[in-house]
Amino acid sequence: MSFVVNFKDSNSNARVGVIKTPSGDIETPVFMPVCTNGTPKALGIDSISSIGFDTIVVNAYHLFLRPGHKNIETFGGLHSFLNWKGNILTDSGGFQIFSLASSAKIGDEGVYFKSFHDGATNLITPELSIEIQEALDSDLMMILDDCPKSDSGYKRILDSIERTKEWATRSKNARKSKNQLFGIVQGGTYKDLRKLSIEHMLDIEFDGYAIGGLGLGEGQDATYEITDYTCSFLPIDKPRYSMGIGKPEDIIRSVEMGVDIFDCVVPTRNARNGTLYTSKGKINIKNSTYSMSNEPIDSDCDCYVCKNYSLGYIRHLYMLKEVAALSLMSYSNLYFYNRLIDSIRKSIKDGSFIDFKKTFLERYKNGEN
Amino acid sequence: MSFVVNFKDSNSNARVGVIKTPSGDIETPVFMPVCTNGTPKALGIDSISSIGFDTIVVNAYHLFLRPGHKNIETFGGLHSFLNWKGNILTDSGGFQIFSLASSAKIGDEGVYFKSFHDGATNLITPELSIEIQEALDSDLMMILDDCPKSDSGYKRILDSIERTKEWATRSKNARKSKNQLFGIVQGGTYKDLRKLSIEHMLDIEFDGYAIGGLGLGEGQDATYEITDYTCSFLPIDKPRYSMGIGKPEDIIRSVEMGVDIFDCVVPTRNARNGTLYTSKGKINIKNSTYSMSNEPIDSDCDCYVCKNYSLGYIRHLYMLKEVAALSLMSYSNLYFYNRLIDSIRKSIKDGSFIDFKKTFLERYKNGEN
Repeated sequence: MSFVVNFKDSNSNARVGVIKTPSGDIETPVFMPVCTNGTPKALGIDSISSIGFDTIVVNAYHLFLRPGHKNIETFGGLHSFLNWKGNILTDSGGFQIFSLASSAKIGDEGVYFKSFHDGATNLITPELSIEIQEALDSDLMMILDDCPKSDSGYKRILDSIERTKEWATRSKNARKSKNQLFGIVQGGTYKDLRKLSIEHMLDIEFDGYAIGGLGLGEGQDATYEITDYTCSFLPIDKPRYSMGIGKPEDIIRSVEMGVDIFDCVVPTRNARNGTLYTSKGKINIKNSTYSMSNEPIDSDCDCYVCKNYSLGYIRHLYMLKEVAALSLMSYSNLYFYNRLIDSIRKSIKDGSFIDFKKTFLERYKNGEN
Repeated sequence: MSFVVNFKDSNSNARVGVIKTPSGDIETPVFMPVCTNGTPKALGIDSISSIGFDTIVVNAYHLFLRPGHKNIETFGGLHSFLNWKGNILTDSGGFQIFSLASSAKIGDEGVYFKSFHDGATNLITPELSIEIQEALDSDLMMILDDCPKSDSGYKRILDSIERTKEWATRSKNARKSKNQLFGIVQGGTYKDLRKLSIEHMLDIEFDGYAIGGLGLGEGQDATYEITDYTCSFLPIDKPRYSMGIGKPEDIIRSVEMGVDIFDCVVPTRNARNGTLYTSKGKINIKNSTYSMSNEPIDSDCDCYVCKNYSLGYIRHLYMLKEVAALSLMSYSNLYFYNRLIDSIRKSIKDGSFIDFKKTFLERYKNGEN
């Protein structure tokens, strides 16, 4: 068994489990920092291990374009290229192809798209996507999916889940390695289509199941409703991955519904926009009240940023657009996320998850936001 | 005595000394990373101590504009604001006022200039410059000087050394603290004016003497000639600071002439432009030959960048404009500079400086450049 549930919360669907891979055990719930091109934005990858994360998500589509998966293969694969000793999940890039490439065209064979680097036309097929991910030798691979926009109509979503079904089968058939492969449930906000997509994925059978197409503008209520609905049909003995989710409150709510794996650009993107996470809520470094603050970002935090630097100094660097500010703030936000997911796991283990959730959201809500 | 020479090279004017300040001993020759706004470009200030530097240069003029020296004073001074436990030299900013401010106007009382942030008109006088530096509580302060462009004519340079003489006297008279204060020798490439400016500074008496107005486009031969000429008139029992110098070869040549203190933006600026220093010479990361290189930047280097990352990976990040590349490369170049100055000191101590110089420049010349 590559996934074992070790603790189950008695008051919710939250659980603590372990995903076993050749790169090591991943205790779930897990949050994976986004390292699209092989590093987090504004930080070195060594910061990710020093914060304490054991798993990162990297984008196979981006690395296919630059520097090329075959080049990375000659470096001995992605672990070696990045000098990253932990686990790697590669996203196939279905979502990115549709959102970044100009004039992406879907055919049954795959997706034609123009590279955002140089405009060259590329075709990614399910088979090529697996070839790329196996060349990278990631621990957890994703099928190529058809990820339509969140405001697509019923017909387009229905088409996408039928195509995703076909591509899922072809992805699985293309796999030559023993690396784990996750299916992706699509279906937008249509419950009947989500259910159909779940049936497709369960029929094909994967090592884990991802919920795709959420957090794309459908609204928080819809995100939660579809997450809860989807989790209720997913097998309890396989890990569940909510792709691109989310904000701290979204992670806590999704864990409650039974989600095990998360990734999100929010901590690093917000850092670059000036927003910092603290145990008392979000703060905006641009607020002039912080210019004279000799306090750390979060007086409850023991990270090296909070131990060494004041809000006033960080704000000074941020206002002068010093790169150091972006690095310090990205580190701080990722540290917050790691503490959050660690606290979630602990609370599930000692039976206090629902209490933790209430306390966290209450304290968090009282912040500046 | 705040400066002691402990080793004197018998084959050149190179020497090893110690500047004593309340923040600790500075062994010279010393290279000070440039932390204009209170951090190096593309790096956190903690990297400076982890590399091994004990002294930084910060710009009083920049901090006067943002966040304001009085604000920093309420944080307990600059050491506390930056959480920097080593030494700090503050440049008065004479050079920056003339090069950055639009329409700087010099009067006998000081310089009027418009802030490059918001266009507000400011006046910096010698007295205010010392007030700023004492509010920052730097260990080594600089007088306010009149730093004309390198292509200025004889009359303008003559005026500038007369004005610098006046401002030097006023700067010294304005000092209330025991923090060390350095005079600045101007005079462009005119030897008679340099000699006159030296006499002015020696008359007033300072804790150390800086050579200003070099490295501004006068050409390497002129830089060396004026450096050598100026050093020949400076007292041997005071530290000598070559402001803004320089490239590795410039530092070695200047040490040979008797210079003790250096600062330069070259290591970090070059990093951002793609140029890396190695013991075999400079390399340009944009060169496609490095895309497949699994070698470190410098196989002779033991820094964490060279121990952990390949040229191929760093190039990949650089080409995709990842901030991490700028940080890794800036760290690497500063590490190179720290090793260089350390090797220079060791070679002076064991009497091998001239051999070191030859070997270094020979190996270095054979690189890509």
